Amino acid sequence: MIGIVGDDFPQAHTAYFQSRNIDLGGLQTVPGRTFRWCGEYHADFNNRTTLSTELGVFETFNPQLPEDYRTTPYVLLGNIGPDLQGHVLDQMERPKFIVADTMNLWINITNEALHKLLKRVDMLVLNDEEARQLTKEENLIRAGRALLELGPRFVAIKKGEHGCMLFGEGGAFFATGAYPLAEIHDPTGAGDSFVGALAGYVASKNPKGVTFDLLRAAVAHGSVMASFNVEAFSLERLRTLTNVQLAERFNQFKAMTRFEE
Amino acid sequence: MIGIVGDDFPQAHTAYFQSRNIDLGGLQTVPGRTFRWCGEYHADFNNRTTLSTELGVFETFNPQLPEDYRTTPYVLLGNIGPDLQGHVLDQMERPKFIVADTMNLWINITNEALHKLLKRVDMLVLNDEEARQLTKEENLIRAGRALLELGPRFVAIKKGEHGCMLFGEGGAFFATGAYPLAEIHDPTGAGDSFVGALAGYVASKNPKGVTFDLLRAAVAHGSVMASFNVEAFSLERLRTLTNVQLAERFNQFKAMTRFEE
Repeated sequence: MIGIVGDDFPQAHTAYFQSRNIDLGGLQTVPGRTFRWCGEYHADFNNRTTLSTELGVFETFNPQLPEDYRTTPYVLLGNIGPDLQGHVLDQMERPKFIVADTMNLWINITNEALHKLLKRVDMLVLNDEEARQLTKEENLIRAGRALLELGPRFVAIKKGEHGCMLFGEGGAFFATGAYPLAEIHDPTGAGDSFVGALAGYVASKNPKGVTFDLLRAAVAHGSVMASFNVEAFSLERLRTLTNVQLAERFNQFKAMTRFEE
Repeated sequence: MIGIVGDDFPQAHTAYFQSRNIDLGGLQTVPGRTFRWCGEYHADFNNRTTLSTELGVFETFNPQLPEDYRTTPYVLLGNIGPDLQGHVLDQMERPKFIVADTMNLWINITNEALHKLLKRVDMLVLNDEEARQLTKEENLIRAGRALLELGPRFVAIKKGEHGCMLFGEGGAFFATGAYPLAEIHDPTGAGDSFVGALAGYVASKNPKGVTFDLLRAAVAHGSVMASFNVEAFSLERLRTLTNVQLAERFNQFKAMTRFEE
């Protein structure tokens, strides 16, 4: 983990990360306030209105990799400006697989830097509106294909409650719905838990080469993780989640998408 | 087929039906104009604005079953008023499986008759907005469960380009996306071709009893048929469609939704 928090960041949070064996060597804690986002979700949970964004210490974030991070083989570039994502890559030694997240803000204000970054990553993950915005294609199949032309070997387009589409070389295509939930409490972080679980699954397999078939399962794992995340406020559900619960839901998810002639 | 057309109905259309071995014994042709709908689709093809609806001869339609139709084992009640759908059922002798389509209009103006009909059918097929409207549940998983309480053993909720969810007894659940298309020319009739192929698939299998697993495949067949239908205006694509093309796309669809741990 590479990141920055202010001195207001609760000790309980860092303690929790440590209890899950998350290396915090790359987490900077500096004077000031931690990044905050405040918003309101609409009735269908697929749209939201931002009420306030306070960058706080994030505004001057300069990601610095500890020496022993530089050879990490699997890299997830979280949603920060593409220049900073590129700056992280500059510090890395030949990673095996690089996944990048992005958002509408960077498509708008740092479009050129984003295009440059896309030539350096193996996989791009973004949502449907962002895919349309970046490619100017209304149809998502065409948007996915157009994104492959920009550099990455794989593209995942997230559609919130409607699931995810995965595009690969040679017309490879995979689609899955979201895991169905009768109650959604807080969709905040669904996209982050999706891409985190996706990248984590790939890293856990440490494959010779990342294949399209491996990424099908990675997308399904991401969907399952996101489904847990939205069941409760903030990280409350992930905090108590076990590997057994993840595996059970993964198997249910597989069963509910199968059909035979 | 049970239906009504006016004397303006092109002879070429009936000739086409006959060339496909469709029995037209239940098609009434009467003086007057055939039903017409005119509308405009929005950019995403998921919403449309009705410009005009002319009921024509449909206004006084009274479905009368030819004697040899009364023992038909598989019945698809197309989208007409629930009273007329019930009137068709009154003329049938113990069908094995009854699927009903409906629409927002009937939910609004003949809600009670619709509730009565739902107790007489095995399966209800409707779209997401209709499911929400009929159950007053925003969440589609809850809407699907609530619809099962109204009578049918199976409920399919269609979500347009986002696919379909199938609900059955004991919490049985299946979900699939739509077959991905880079070009959509005319979504008119997608829902009808979906439910037609679904019911046709079940009838072609003529099972001892209709199971949830059979309906998974039926939903997938419906999705594939609908994907062909929207590729060209009106019935143009279905007109030339072959069983080999259907089977090929069905297999592609299966491959693109599979994942393995």
